[in-house]
Amino acid sequence: MKKVVVTGASGFLGHHVLAPLQRRGFAVHALYKGTAPGDRATDVHWHQCDLFDDHAVRVMFESIRPTGLLHLAWETKPGAYWAASSNLDWVAATLRMLQHFRRVGGARLVIAGSSAEYQWGGDQLLDEIQTPLLPASLYGHCKNALREIVQAWAPAVQISWAWGRIFNIFGSGENSARLIPKIVRTLEAGEQLPFDSGACRRDFLHVADAADAFADLFASSVTGAVNVASGEATPVKSVVSTIAHCLDRTDQVQFDTLPAVPEEHAQIVAAVRRLREEVCWRPAASLEVRLRETCAAWRKAHPITRAGHAS
Amino acid sequence: MKKVVVTGASGFLGHHVLAPLQRRGFAVHALYKGTAPGDRATDVHWHQCDLFDDHAVRVMFESIRPTGLLHLAWETKPGAYWAASSNLDWVAATLRMLQHFRRVGGARLVIAGSSAEYQWGGDQLLDEIQTPLLPASLYGHCKNALREIVQAWAPAVQISWAWGRIFNIFGSGENSARLIPKIVRTLEAGEQLPFDSGACRRDFLHVADAADAFADLFASSVTGAVNVASGEATPVKSVVSTIAHCLDRTDQVQFDTLPAVPEEHAQIVAAVRRLREEVCWRPAASLEVRLRETCAAWRKAHPITRAGHAS
Repeated sequence: MKKVVVTGASGFLGHHVLAPLQRRGFAVHALYKGTAPGDRATDVHWHQCDLFDDHAVRVMFESIRPTGLLHLAWETKPGAYWAASSNLDWVAATLRMLQHFRRVGGARLVIAGSSAEYQWGGDQLLDEIQTPLLPASLYGHCKNALREIVQAWAPAVQISWAWGRIFNIFGSGENSARLIPKIVRTLEAGEQLPFDSGACRRDFLHVADAADAFADLFASSVTGAVNVASGEATPVKSVVSTIAHCLDRTDQVQFDTLPAVPEEHAQIVAAVRRLREEVCWRPAASLEVRLRETCAAWRKAHPITRAGHAS
Repeated sequence: MKKVVVTGASGFLGHHVLAPLQRRGFAVHALYKGTAPGDRATDVHWHQCDLFDDHAVRVMFESIRPTGLLHLAWETKPGAYWAASSNLDWVAATLRMLQHFRRVGGARLVIAGSSAEYQWGGDQLLDEIQTPLLPASLYGHCKNALREIVQAWAPAVQISWAWGRIFNIFGSGENSARLIPKIVRTLEAGEQLPFDSGACRRDFLHVADAADAFADLFASSVTGAVNVASGEATPVKSVVSTIAHCLDRTDQVQFDTLPAVPEEHAQIVAAVRRLREEVCWRPAASLEVRLRETCAAWRKAHPITRAGHAS
């Protein structure tokens, strides 16, 4: 059974990708930092490993000797990650880890990229081949620079590589400071939700679908950058309305009461031809179904806040 | 007096840059790996430091607390450096060093880039603003990726940065496997020197001039990428002929006896507007004078091989 190391395995996306990898026949070695996750998947080999500790990483790779590496770990603190100097540390730690992976015979490598690598703006879908790579943030630059290095290095050392660019992922386990949890939390607290027009179009994908797509991408022999996204241009207004409807809180939403954020781009949506036609992956459920599930999961996890409904 | 740390200080270019920095009023802290260089410049503070040892680098920066960093160290093994996996280690080591530099109050940063970052080909001069950055080697990709990160990071942490792109540097101390030492060595050994047409045009700059330019660039407040080059399109044939003439060995050179290397580009020459007009730097001597000096220095360093002249 082929061994795959998953970094960031206790994180938002990593948490969801372990079972899909197992279903595809991989022996999964999940790396986490700090304390072990509570709800650990069965038959997963968990390893405590600080990826900034080069010696620990080397020992880990020499001990596991994986043929596969799915690298999802990165700085993810909401808001802060765009400009954090730690983005440099993540590039450095990744490059050192790749050398260890190669030395023990690594053969298949998939790394999480980001929509932030693309030049944003305009009404075109963001395409792996056509769209210029011109990030607007340190995070985007660091991801793009790492991709440039991996693209030049991996084929030369006979490592098959792919780069899964993530757009707007949501679902259970998402950091509460991010958009959809904030909407749900505000509405469920019985508070008014002022909003701008909600006209911006984004690419929303449920985390379970994104994880499933990453597992398919990993198991495939597709190389290069692949958008891991829905390909659907969904107005944020539509997401807010669907959530409010699911929670029966439509009266709390007030569109057009906040000004539009000046630097927000009208559209950040992926072209998904590579994902559909080369990886042959499609989401298992519609966005509406996934938002409904997310609301239901939130209520199940936070029964006490339902009191806010009466306020 | 402002302290500047110079990495790769015992290397080809680094060796020549210490005195020019001192002349511009800097207190120079020179880092080297392994054994200390024999002919150490006076009043330079030499420090043994392995840049791949993160702990040693941190201790070094906390001890010196420099406001300036001139980073010249990299993989330089002739031929091998283009594709060496160690290019990844150099990117990682540089990023970690930059974090230490910032933490101790670093303010001015200059890093050695390369002509290999540009898309080669065509008859245009390679320009910092116009020419696409599309390397053809792992070395070029790693340098370019590092530049992308530094460009996004340095202004955000209030570090003034410049990136000196090096073209064909030659002179005393050059690795004997490189072009000009090979020509001199072959001719001085009394051997025939078969050559192709020598029609390719390159940008040759003496290492002492390049070092002087780096010192000026460092002392300036110019930011971004700057070609550190002559700006002159010199046919390789002209360099070979000048050397042969200096050594009185013109009869040993045989042009048009080797086929042209298919992947060689006809021209790799820098635009030097930024260096001339913004850094206000020009070379102190012509290429012919510098080649003559190089031949004389070689003869002084290798008197025994003159025997070959009679063969």
